[in-house]
Amino acid sequence: MAAQKPSIPKGTRDFGPVEMTRRNYIFDTCREVFRLFGYAPIETPAMENLSTLLGKYGEEGDKLLFKVLNSGEYLDALEAKTRGLNDKELRQLIELSDSTILAAIRFVRDEIHSFDTAKTMEEEYHRKFSEIEERNLGRFIFSYSSGKKRGEKQLSALGKYVETITPNKLRGYVKQAIRQSKLSNLKHTSALTQRISEKGLRYDLTVPFARYVVQHQNEIAFPFKRYQMQPVWRADRPQKGRYREFYQCDVDVIGSRSLLNEVELVQIVEAVFARLGVAVTLKLNNRKILAGIAETIGHADRLVDITVAIDKLEKIGMEAVRAELAEKGIDAAAVARLDPILALSGSNSEKLDRLADALKGSETGLAGIDEMRFVFDTAAALEIPLDVELDLSLARGLNYYTGTIFEVKARDWPIGSICGGGRYDNLTGIFGMPGVSGVGISFGADRIYDVMEGLGLFPDGVAGGTRVMFVNFGGEEELASLRLLAGVRAAGIPAEIYPDAAKMKKQMEWANRRAIPFVAIVGGEEMASRTATLKNMATGEQTGVPFDRLAETIK
Amino acid sequence: MAAQKPSIPKGTRDFGPVEMTRRNYIFDTCREVFRLFGYAPIETPAMENLSTLLGKYGEEGDKLLFKVLNSGEYLDALEAKTRGLNDKELRQLIELSDSTILAAIRFVRDEIHSFDTAKTMEEEYHRKFSEIEERNLGRFIFSYSSGKKRGEKQLSALGKYVETITPNKLRGYVKQAIRQSKLSNLKHTSALTQRISEKGLRYDLTVPFARYVVQHQNEIAFPFKRYQMQPVWRADRPQKGRYREFYQCDVDVIGSRSLLNEVELVQIVEAVFARLGVAVTLKLNNRKILAGIAETIGHADRLVDITVAIDKLEKIGMEAVRAELAEKGIDAAAVARLDPILALSGSNSEKLDRLADALKGSETGLAGIDEMRFVFDTAAALEIPLDVELDLSLARGLNYYTGTIFEVKARDWPIGSICGGGRYDNLTGIFGMPGVSGVGISFGADRIYDVMEGLGLFPDGVAGGTRVMFVNFGGEEELASLRLLAGVRAAGIPAEIYPDAAKMKKQMEWANRRAIPFVAIVGGEEMASRTATLKNMATGEQTGVPFDRLAETIK
Repeated sequence: MAAQKPSIPKGTRDFGPVEMTRRNYIFDTCREVFRLFGYAPIETPAMENLSTLLGKYGEEGDKLLFKVLNSGEYLDALEAKTRGLNDKELRQLIELSDSTILAAIRFVRDEIHSFDTAKTMEEEYHRKFSEIEERNLGRFIFSYSSGKKRGEKQLSALGKYVETITPNKLRGYVKQAIRQSKLSNLKHTSALTQRISEKGLRYDLTVPFARYVVQHQNEIAFPFKRYQMQPVWRADRPQKGRYREFYQCDVDVIGSRSLLNEVELVQIVEAVFARLGVAVTLKLNNRKILAGIAETIGHADRLVDITVAIDKLEKIGMEAVRAELAEKGIDAAAVARLDPILALSGSNSEKLDRLADALKGSETGLAGIDEMRFVFDTAAALEIPLDVELDLSLARGLNYYTGTIFEVKARDWPIGSICGGGRYDNLTGIFGMPGVSGVGISFGADRIYDVMEGLGLFPDGVAGGTRVMFVNFGGEEELASLRLLAGVRAAGIPAEIYPDAAKMKKQMEWANRRAIPFVAIVGGEEMASRTATLKNMATGEQTGVPFDRLAETIK
Repeated sequence: MAAQKPSIPKGTRDFGPVEMTRRNYIFDTCREVFRLFGYAPIETPAMENLSTLLGKYGEEGDKLLFKVLNSGEYLDALEAKTRGLNDKELRQLIELSDSTILAAIRFVRDEIHSFDTAKTMEEEYHRKFSEIEERNLGRFIFSYSSGKKRGEKQLSALGKYVETITPNKLRGYVKQAIRQSKLSNLKHTSALTQRISEKGLRYDLTVPFARYVVQHQNEIAFPFKRYQMQPVWRADRPQKGRYREFYQCDVDVIGSRSLLNEVELVQIVEAVFARLGVAVTLKLNNRKILAGIAETIGHADRLVDITVAIDKLEKIGMEAVRAELAEKGIDAAAVARLDPILALSGSNSEKLDRLADALKGSETGLAGIDEMRFVFDTAAALEIPLDVELDLSLARGLNYYTGTIFEVKARDWPIGSICGGGRYDNLTGIFGMPGVSGVGISFGADRIYDVMEGLGLFPDGVAGGTRVMFVNFGGEEELASLRLLAGVRAAGIPAEIYPDAAKMKKQMEWANRRAIPFVAIVGGEEMASRTATLKNMATGEQTGVPFDRLAETIK
């Protein structure tokens, strides 16, 4: 094979040792905190059935799913069949000289392929095809396009149908069937796509988690507190800071409506970022408050338009928000009532007091305010050392959040949200398990990495790499070094020997490039005196260290 | 959306908290040992370009690759076009009434689709198609099927061609082109497959590692010692113990021919399994010895047939091996010379001595023996406490191993190899970087898990879960518990409070199902005396523990 210039798919990344060690520092910190709060790890497969994923992320999300071909062989088989047709056979297809019939035939041919996997498939196909019978085919197409589900039974029935079909009469009947059943609308696309792809790469960890909970509900002790750290894939257009493969780091509790869970998530946010040394502000809002605001200004049904507009408040200012709302058809009087609500200032508790006054006509709004009060009050009573702030313009993920909404911003580095989430009341409903409430947040490892790198927050020791390299002189010295090495490792100290008796300079350079802090030299003299020469690579200083004190000196 | 019964793709798995904790115990142990020996972590993307993967695992392997569709939209677009044709247009296609022409047209149509992504694609296609010009199309097909690479230039040229083509004259010329260029052999398949899929899920960690090394060669300090623990995907038929998604856990050093690396891998095998408490035997062989044997019995060119046969020695016995060799056309005299070699017994060093005698005519064989001697002798000198054994029937991965071959078996549990690998001299050659030697092994986490579970080797403490649950009585007691909880967590002890003030029984059951060892009760009395009631869930014993001694008691 010719040499290839290797590359990786756009939007994906390799992580080398330094990045890995730093990323693991972030993941390990999250893991440690999650564990401390009683959350248990789970993992789900990279591939989920498309039926699990489709329709969960909106139309746009569906397009961003990476779909996996059913098997390397399906397409090959399909195409081999087409290629395998001889002139006469293809002419048979064509002589029918009616476009819709051709479409129907191609469709049926695909059906046959899909349920017939015997070796004699090609022969069978030719035989069956030449015997296609009009009426039953028409009926089949009709039933298919009427949206009936094909079962095994039906497919085997189709097998019998096609054995009795003759091509000559096909045309009229198929035309009739088409008129009746709107063959032109036949979802050939989805049928084909389905046949070549039934699996997709997970798009986030939330939907797989919902699927997991429903599938394993009998094994789970609810409330179920889980964390999950795995990559997800999105066929987004790659750009700075946006990748097609990235890790999510989710922590959720499901099966409890208690607001203590919200408080616990506040504690977790505090603990993770305190350990990482990142100064953050946690912004909170509540979907019920947003609904209350929409209700109060007389547009309960326009919740989405209103929140989408006020979500931009920080970016574009009140004037532009007003303009957008007007454009969306919200009347001036309503917008005027919105103004003072969004202009609320003061402490969280002052804001909530005034908001309670403003939303006093909305039961939903007041419920949201009570929820927020509990979270703020309990956080204050526990003296959680975190800047927590009510932000009425926060509206992320409105599609499925039903209560509290969370968002974390780094205070000293300009970047979007580095962590966020919320409460959802019915995530598992789509999988047949309604009324299970949950709340969770997701840590954005890539952005946290960028913040920490930007601010120089990774501790030097994070590398955790090799502490000492033994120079390799070969022969007896090599063996002596290997023995000492075993002792150093037994003390839990990462240590190595250069694998060849190469030139000293080369060995030292290798140690240097890899930022190994100590180099141990064990030559003939050192062996005789049972004292290694230890070089501190930062200072250049060399000291003699007795063999039996090597580990404690390097540690 | 209707409720779906959720499931996951066959051959994939969910891992719940208990499995995850145990799996992490295995991974963490490997990671700790690899780090101790100076190996650094890397990660590569789940998706690699198909050009990176194809042809690296044999024909069978190619078929087992999971291919990812380029984008959800391509197929939809392709099919929408076909659907979008009206009767007249489809009839135009059909009226040509020549099977090969139809095939050619479909092919050209696909070509057009592939380079024309403008919105007006459909219109353009119809215009261009109706104007297809015979000669240039013929020329195009000819050049394509001759295997010339299509460049951007050629595609744009095609665009110009089709603008001048008329359909009536197409037939004869295309036929001519077909005769000349063997259109029937046109690789329509691979053209289509390529257009709908250019990426695949990684099949192992070795090829991505080779790709990584070549791509990042300028950043790497060779010899490069890396470990990598990530899932891989194979479209294998799922069966007991064989999954379509599973983790590999690889440790390799690349850029060094030193046999010390082999010795280090022996040490790593010893360290990992000693820490896990799994008793193992490490079997070693050497490709050069196998080549020497084939050479010695006069069939150097039949190395693969011979090793495939003797690889089965343990399973089927010498008699059957002899029969298989005879069937493969190895003469009786040669098989007779093989007999005593395979029957070698005694210590490793005795076996090697006799083998050196048997293979004295083969330079390659003797080189292999020398290599094995170094590994055995150094392992013995270092007193590595591991059962290491020369096994001449070991032939795994013969396709790319060139020196030492490793395989680890669990001594007390019947299962295949739980770890294996070898030396490869030219893995990066296919990516344009020849002559880089490497050696590595891969730990089979799933099988190690099965062995450890089968033998009950997971330590009780592995769970690492919550140590104490505080009962939730609501109100002031809740707040008091939350404060105590913060103190317990500050001491590094995983701890929780039941999120609702539910019935005591329900809370206790939850703690029980989750195997939490202690339950702390802080009611009014306890608050007054500043002494929690601590219940040991295993013994049922209850004791009063002063608030300020809670953490140390639970620890």
